[in-house]
Amino acid sequence: MKIAVDAMGGDHAPAVVIKGVEQARDQWPDLEFVLFGDLAQVKPLIQNDERLTLVQSNSVITNEDEPVKAVRSKKDSSMVMAAQAVKDGAAEAVFSMGNTGALLATGIFVIGRIKGIDRPALMPTLPTTNPNNVVNLLDAGANAESKANYLEQWALMGSIYARDIRGIKEPRVALLNNGSEFDKGDSLHQEVYQRLEANPNLNFQGNVEAGFILTDVADVVVTDGFTGNAVLKATEGMAALLMNQIKSSLLNGGARAKLGAVLIKPALGGVKQRFSTSANGGAVLLGVNAPVIKTHGGSKEAAVVSTIGQIREMLVKKTIPQVIDYLKQNPIK
Amino acid sequence: MKIAVDAMGGDHAPAVVIKGVEQARDQWPDLEFVLFGDLAQVKPLIQNDERLTLVQSNSVITNEDEPVKAVRSKKDSSMVMAAQAVKDGAAEAVFSMGNTGALLATGIFVIGRIKGIDRPALMPTLPTTNPNNVVNLLDAGANAESKANYLEQWALMGSIYARDIRGIKEPRVALLNNGSEFDKGDSLHQEVYQRLEANPNLNFQGNVEAGFILTDVADVVVTDGFTGNAVLKATEGMAALLMNQIKSSLLNGGARAKLGAVLIKPALGGVKQRFSTSANGGAVLLGVNAPVIKTHGGSKEAAVVSTIGQIREMLVKKTIPQVIDYLKQNPIK
Repeated sequence: MKIAVDAMGGDHAPAVVIKGVEQARDQWPDLEFVLFGDLAQVKPLIQNDERLTLVQSNSVITNEDEPVKAVRSKKDSSMVMAAQAVKDGAAEAVFSMGNTGALLATGIFVIGRIKGIDRPALMPTLPTTNPNNVVNLLDAGANAESKANYLEQWALMGSIYARDIRGIKEPRVALLNNGSEFDKGDSLHQEVYQRLEANPNLNFQGNVEAGFILTDVADVVVTDGFTGNAVLKATEGMAALLMNQIKSSLLNGGARAKLGAVLIKPALGGVKQRFSTSANGGAVLLGVNAPVIKTHGGSKEAAVVSTIGQIREMLVKKTIPQVIDYLKQNPIK
Repeated sequence: MKIAVDAMGGDHAPAVVIKGVEQARDQWPDLEFVLFGDLAQVKPLIQNDERLTLVQSNSVITNEDEPVKAVRSKKDSSMVMAAQAVKDGAAEAVFSMGNTGALLATGIFVIGRIKGIDRPALMPTLPTTNPNNVVNLLDAGANAESKANYLEQWALMGSIYARDIRGIKEPRVALLNNGSEFDKGDSLHQEVYQRLEANPNLNFQGNVEAGFILTDVADVVVTDGFTGNAVLKATEGMAALLMNQIKSSLLNGGARAKLGAVLIKPALGGVKQRFSTSANGGAVLLGVNAPVIKTHGGSKEAAVVSTIGQIREMLVKKTIPQVIDYLKQNPIK
């Protein structure tokens, strides 16, 4: 299995990417990698080139680039070249830590949508209050405008993913809405509710409110992309803000609080780790013809390794071929 | 100034409501109250009936009631009777801790919308990372479907509120969107952006993403009611979840963590207090012809007192008459 890697994406590229890829290579003997990047920077960082192929790319898509424009104009960028390798059959999946919007556009324009999927969705894996379970949220922001059939397609893809990759026999699917009753929400969400309930291949649990997404009431939460983006950012924002406020109140709370802070550090670190944005792998661009996964630009190599492990699982379990196959037999219009 | 009080709303009614009202009465000599409730329960709880009028109500709207139906069928409830008193000129504002949806419906159907406001909005006041500032978010969920002119009307009302009640000369107004650039969002949010930018009476700051609402980048954040509801619940949900996780990790972290927990308690309590849902007064139903404000059903008497203080400010500053007057001269269609 060969993974195309955008070696230049992210805040600490290419060093973090390469460290992570080398660890992943050592961990999984069945993986090979093609790294796209500025070889003058990349080559000196490589410890061991076993199962690594290096390819020169002459530009980088930055976070300041306008996604669609960048994908069209920077065809020699590490990100677009990695996707092109998948399109050409030289690799089977893409890993990147770069500009999320540009990766979405790259996935759609270069690798292409799965037949029967109107719009791909971005799907992170989030922690829950149950230490033994997580939750997949989609669409977390690939689409500003959403239609009812898109959400049904996303529910289906999320459910297949949770079944194969997380090993849940009949994943519980819920719809993010502004109340738990069946008739809640605007006309879009009311229609989606009806569709999800009527779909015999979904284990639909009804609506979930935004305050309960992380309380293990569902394995997959489906949402329109605008709300999903807002909820994900609000959740991450509040977690970061609260941790910072606690830290600063302890630092400014005198000797007593400072001593307390030292004593609770190990216990608090566990919570912080579990609720950090990259603890549970990367966000999957679900709905294109190959696994395309990204982790936060600021992540460390451990997140690179776990995300590559996630890509490997998707290849081993043939998640994308299964989605393609399902939609051929059960089109969602 | 006379405030109509729904004495039976909330988890600890009528005791908490009455305690809070009596404290508020003692604090502000210019306030009078009319309390609506089951007098058999209410009367024994009253310490001192100075500036308190009691009126018997024979039913209660519970959290299980369907809002619109309850308002129509329970005309003898404490909530509807309190609103009716305002409608009849016997009081000037409504305080409640009851069913939010029912209070919205009561405000709209009994007290009535301000002329020129298509839909009233629910506006809580939230803490920010700046201990000296807060932020108003509207609509936090009164409306499942929103139109561009509604959001412009909400921006205007929120701005007048922040100016008069919070004393900010030119309140910074931002639009909650899925990116900071001007062309972000779906067609609704793009149109709202244009409207807010073109309105000469708004100090518009552009878009804000959900992760930054609480970082003091704006005094007023305007959002469609569906997203506002989701973001508010996600934010509150994450705060509660994280506090619980920290608590349980400290309790299960052995002797060291337990000792640390005791030492940090005062410092942590400050953060918890500031980010608790009722620390900053109640949520205003903005857009009806009188102040209608509610606090969380589980709040304690301190939240009742601060919310009554907020109602008093709105009456003193004539916030609602100012909105009415503004819209007469500057209709927003």
